[in-house]
Amino acid sequence: MESLRVVLGPTEGERAYPIHIGSGIVGSSELYRPYLTGGGAAVVTNDVVGKHYLEAVERALGGAHATTIRIEDGEGAKSWQSVDRVCDALLEARIGRDGLVVALGGGVVGDLAGFAAAVYQRGVDFVQVPTTLLAQVDSSVGGKTAINHARGKNMIGAFHQPRAVIADVATLDTLPDRELRAGLAEVIKHGAALDAELFAWLESNVEKILRRDRAALTHAVRRSCELKAAIVAADEREAGARALLNFGHTFGHAIEAATGYGAWLHGEAVAAGMVMAAQLSHLQGLVSREDVQRVKNLVARAGLPVKGPAIAPDELMALMSVDKKAAAGKVRFVVLKALGAAELRGGMAEPNVRAAIVAAAQ
Amino acid sequence: MESLRVVLGPTEGERAYPIHIGSGIVGSSELYRPYLTGGGAAVVTNDVVGKHYLEAVERALGGAHATTIRIEDGEGAKSWQSVDRVCDALLEARIGRDGLVVALGGGVVGDLAGFAAAVYQRGVDFVQVPTTLLAQVDSSVGGKTAINHARGKNMIGAFHQPRAVIADVATLDTLPDRELRAGLAEVIKHGAALDAELFAWLESNVEKILRRDRAALTHAVRRSCELKAAIVAADEREAGARALLNFGHTFGHAIEAATGYGAWLHGEAVAAGMVMAAQLSHLQGLVSREDVQRVKNLVARAGLPVKGPAIAPDELMALMSVDKKAAAGKVRFVVLKALGAAELRGGMAEPNVRAAIVAAAQ
Repeated sequence: MESLRVVLGPTEGERAYPIHIGSGIVGSSELYRPYLTGGGAAVVTNDVVGKHYLEAVERALGGAHATTIRIEDGEGAKSWQSVDRVCDALLEARIGRDGLVVALGGGVVGDLAGFAAAVYQRGVDFVQVPTTLLAQVDSSVGGKTAINHARGKNMIGAFHQPRAVIADVATLDTLPDRELRAGLAEVIKHGAALDAELFAWLESNVEKILRRDRAALTHAVRRSCELKAAIVAADEREAGARALLNFGHTFGHAIEAATGYGAWLHGEAVAAGMVMAAQLSHLQGLVSREDVQRVKNLVARAGLPVKGPAIAPDELMALMSVDKKAAAGKVRFVVLKALGAAELRGGMAEPNVRAAIVAAAQ
Repeated sequence: MESLRVVLGPTEGERAYPIHIGSGIVGSSELYRPYLTGGGAAVVTNDVVGKHYLEAVERALGGAHATTIRIEDGEGAKSWQSVDRVCDALLEARIGRDGLVVALGGGVVGDLAGFAAAVYQRGVDFVQVPTTLLAQVDSSVGGKTAINHARGKNMIGAFHQPRAVIADVATLDTLPDRELRAGLAEVIKHGAALDAELFAWLESNVEKILRRDRAALTHAVRRSCELKAAIVAADEREAGARALLNFGHTFGHAIEAATGYGAWLHGEAVAAGMVMAAQLSHLQGLVSREDVQRVKNLVARAGLPVKGPAIAPDELMALMSVDKKAAAGKVRFVVLKALGAAELRGGMAEPNVRAAIVAAAQ
């Protein structure tokens, strides 16, 4: 098992928390014990994940003392109704202010359980046990929790840092291929936006990840968490550097909204969005055509879409104007200055944005 | 106009914000201007308050650019449905992450609008314009926001500090007598729990406050905010000293829950709760019978109830065991060591708790 520490800035009281990455650690009671302080514990999960790992987690928490809160599988669980249901179950189980919420599952479980932990009695501790590659590389760091609103994804939420993250790459054995690939999209994003070395490593090792080589997975998760943690430590509330983690996301969110949430997986939309963002960077004169091709090739080898959906560019562009990153009505994009070095820029030429969407469709 | 600064601890990044207290300042545009940063502004209010002060606030915000979000009057507005409605209106008005929410009204408006501001896009700025004495002396400091749950009051919420508070004592002219008195209960609480001098000042000036003397009101609001701010600065998340602000609240919350929220005003329940807590302090051998009598007399002169409702003591005690201050199943009480000096203590003798309830009913 490897562990790294996420150091939080002054807005979180200079706290730090560990991310444990390993194989077969989901049931290690010593990783949970420091956070069991007598106020009770509840595991939030769904049946898809629960049938494989719930028993091990419950045993690690001390069996009978832990309450289980089952939520539905899928993005639909990120709703007010689910938050209310989780809070209701926490109250029924008399989980106190010093209680613990354990989120066992992918991004949906983490986002929902984390948000419930953020607002239940104005905030209780939570430990994240991500069981998808996406959640391990993306949600483990940053403290973002959220639910969806009919008008947009993740529009309601809170920053609420976990006390610890337990990322067990063995749990990825039961992850469907399509979801493994979607998680890989975020690893590619970390390489493309932040670390040319990781990008090159992926170009050599992408197939190992696809066949779930645990050493390769551990490296990918660890490096992703390190990169994200370095940004979060410096810039916890997304004023500057943290926005770079949204490479591919402005386009990606528009794709998700246009196709109806769930039709495309988040990582798939981000993958096509990265190709568009790389193309936009090229059209703005920032990177070469070859760099765009490298992004496109890696995305393709990862089994991810390089093309957007069959949606009119105008529709995607309209959707982007309500993207959360819109400041004072002006959309800003994360573009590449070079492979491994992204930047947030406003004032993109509108025809270039359109052309990037069109080019990615070909 | 007087201004004082609330200094926030490390969990809020060592920020500070001003509380402006004065007469006729609700429409002073210079007090809002620093927080209008281009992301749009929305005023959350209800019709009862709005009909008197909304126009002045809208003018101060620049008229046409401000959106108004009306919520229903009363405690029922502190619901998931209302938060959803406010967030929906914020999205419809395209309020951005750098937008501003202005809470114009009493505690319900502040709690709801503050919670919506806390979770909308994971947190946007808000300015509080409290128009009840309760909100001016209690909600102005501390950053507590919340909605209610069927199983308990304020069970869902967030700590979200305002950017500024604008407390206009002239807005108390339109406050019903009963609500003025309920607010006065919290001022008495600040005196009884924290400041013998304020308690004595109230013994000399309670009638001035009841006839809405603006100088007396300004003093009461200012001193209350100062006392609360000193505690919050030292102890932002209620681990220790902040609990002292809950003097009378353990009994008070039980009274509210037993009678159905709304039958008793919060301040009325706290008033009777303070008499019970003073009585409990006496039964535990901490303060004299005369001190209990002083609390009872001041509460009575303020036109507040000194007796609890006609509810069996057992029922109130059962309700207290699910009070939020219950840690690991053990109820702790804020008791008086002396008038003006409260303390949080566990291990109260159960018969004394019962006797305090019974004594207050006589």
